[in-house]
Amino acid sequence: MAAEETSKLCELGEAYPMKGGDGPKNYANNSTYQRGAVDVVKHVINMAIEEKLDIDNLMLSNSNTTFRIADLGCSVGPNTFSSIDTIIEAVQSKYQTQGPRPSSSQIPGFQVFFNDHTSNDFNVLFKSLPDQNRRRYYAAGVPGSFYGRIFPRASIHFVHSSYALQWLSRVPKEVVDKDSPAWNKGRIHYLNSTEEVARAYRAQHAEDMECFLDARAQEVVCGGLMVLIIPGHQLQGSPNDSHSFLNVTYRLLGSSLMDMAKKGVVSEEKVDSFNIPIYHMSPQELEAAVEQNGSFSIEGMEHLPQVPKLDTVAQNAQLIASHSRAVTEELFKQQFGDELILDELFDLYRKKLEAQPSIFEFMGTTTFLAVLKRKAN
Amino acid sequence: MAAEETSKLCELGEAYPMKGGDGPKNYANNSTYQRGAVDVVKHVINMAIEEKLDIDNLMLSNSNTTFRIADLGCSVGPNTFSSIDTIIEAVQSKYQTQGPRPSSSQIPGFQVFFNDHTSNDFNVLFKSLPDQNRRRYYAAGVPGSFYGRIFPRASIHFVHSSYALQWLSRVPKEVVDKDSPAWNKGRIHYLNSTEEVARAYRAQHAEDMECFLDARAQEVVCGGLMVLIIPGHQLQGSPNDSHSFLNVTYRLLGSSLMDMAKKGVVSEEKVDSFNIPIYHMSPQELEAAVEQNGSFSIEGMEHLPQVPKLDTVAQNAQLIASHSRAVTEELFKQQFGDELILDELFDLYRKKLEAQPSIFEFMGTTTFLAVLKRKAN
Repeated sequence: MAAEETSKLCELGEAYPMKGGDGPKNYANNSTYQRGAVDVVKHVINMAIEEKLDIDNLMLSNSNTTFRIADLGCSVGPNTFSSIDTIIEAVQSKYQTQGPRPSSSQIPGFQVFFNDHTSNDFNVLFKSLPDQNRRRYYAAGVPGSFYGRIFPRASIHFVHSSYALQWLSRVPKEVVDKDSPAWNKGRIHYLNSTEEVARAYRAQHAEDMECFLDARAQEVVCGGLMVLIIPGHQLQGSPNDSHSFLNVTYRLLGSSLMDMAKKGVVSEEKVDSFNIPIYHMSPQELEAAVEQNGSFSIEGMEHLPQVPKLDTVAQNAQLIASHSRAVTEELFKQQFGDELILDELFDLYRKKLEAQPSIFEFMGTTTFLAVLKRKAN
Repeated sequence: MAAEETSKLCELGEAYPMKGGDGPKNYANNSTYQRGAVDVVKHVINMAIEEKLDIDNLMLSNSNTTFRIADLGCSVGPNTFSSIDTIIEAVQSKYQTQGPRPSSSQIPGFQVFFNDHTSNDFNVLFKSLPDQNRRRYYAAGVPGSFYGRIFPRASIHFVHSSYALQWLSRVPKEVVDKDSPAWNKGRIHYLNSTEEVARAYRAQHAEDMECFLDARAQEVVCGGLMVLIIPGHQLQGSPNDSHSFLNVTYRLLGSSLMDMAKKGVVSEEKVDSFNIPIYHMSPQELEAAVEQNGSFSIEGMEHLPQVPKLDTVAQNAQLIASHSRAVTEELFKQQFGDELILDELFDLYRKKLEAQPSIFEFMGTTTFLAVLKRKAN
């Protein structure tokens, strides 16, 4: 969860500064999407709390009760803070207008748990928190994988997770096993690979979603809500369609890496054992996982707007290359260390994207937002 | 709270490695005290939970309730973890033997909040946490000063704070104000200074304790306990006795710094505005603060064993110099940056200590442990 996807592009660009920052990655060129996506998310959160949060049964009548919010895969902030503000405003407003006793003293206190892997930079996160006097919540950081239990039983009232659930808990074992039919030699992802590799990724994803929902079922109070923002698979075609946008981009990034292996810049063995642990789930897969788990109902599903195309092929190629780098840079560094020159890799990738202008016709991933509610036991 | 005092000497020595680590600071020379102090703390925590924690009234009958522990001024660990284990074992044991319904399913889950300033290294803390599978608690980090509110109302059942409350929230304003009668020119602490300076420190401490107890009164549930381990003032004589051990050590450290100013190594102006924001409270001052606040009762008070003297004056001088450096190094760096050579300062200090062998007869500070209970409203 250290890296994030499309809608956090601008902020990630700032966190990992790159050359040519005045180019297609500048804020003006991306803020339309940012604004559009933020508006949809805000609207859905407001509607979910307004219509689906049953505060009479959710909270104890005790006025001392705390409303606890978990942000899963928060990274180093600060994107996460505006969603948290939206959630708290909506809950406060609901208490003010529909609370059991409409007195402001009945509005609960808020505690927000910012979660990410232990390797996340919590020092940066804590320093970027809004000032304690201006915040309407008490903040805490929670280190650990959200594929396991990280909170006490029935202690969380609202879960928010944005651009985090696409990360698998690990690269599927089979795809790095030379003796397995799912060995993913010379490629870096299940898209544009064999059915065996895709199956291994699907299985890992199914297992991860089972763990995620099992853990949350224990941690979220009955009636509690989850808002999950998930970068899924593309609108056009199936994820395995070899002409799909995602498929082509993973293929070109993989082939850029293989070109560097052939030139002797990186070891081919390391390329063979390198795989990006991202899975592009479909709304239907989420539905199936929720049904299998049995503890949650799906209360709503929305598609976020597509990232708008830029004017020229060169700009679009640069946008995609920069975005891919922001998301995957840490993975590349872990696998290849200093032996891989990332500038060279992503420049090669950008050129390959430019050479295939037709792919930008179907540019974009489907990001969807799901509202889940913890059923009564 | 980034630095700690006497009983954490060995671990701090490791966190801020120094030359001559095989000398008097090695573990063998210090472990007797470590063991003695840890044993007393463990015993008092066990007794407090056994005798003073009223689990019938403390917890809701709901078996899902979480027992929440706050560790205030945790630094980067790992010293804090063994006390947390002691607390949890004692609470579990109490539930097993005296719980409302003596069934293991009634034992609450545990959540531990590790608190320190935002500038604390939470990344190191989180990495040093016991493995999630071996821990009996869910962990969270909470950034912020414990002189303000950091937790929701009535959300904490047990507070632990070890070697943190001696740190004032800030250097008293008057002592760095040239126009104030409390201007602490040429000295670095209220001990061995004027009555005006001592008064400014006392006033700051009184204000801080008021803030601390007010915040905790709101955060701790009725019947909840606080165990505070506080490095207080010396056994022999009053804190202002110019021959007391603490008084002499602060004077010698201050005069070492002034010697360097006279040599032109550091600016005298910076020395004048440098003051160590540590206050050595007495048990009586704690009692007075608790009485004024009114929300807590003092259920017990224990003195921790004295740090044992080493065999020679040279060893004792080295021990004190190393310890002072561990506690104050960050403060010196903040004020003087690279212009001050810390090796030179603490070597000078060590030599001054060696030249006054009589002070080691009264070596040591009084560290005391207080058990407070949140009264019913």
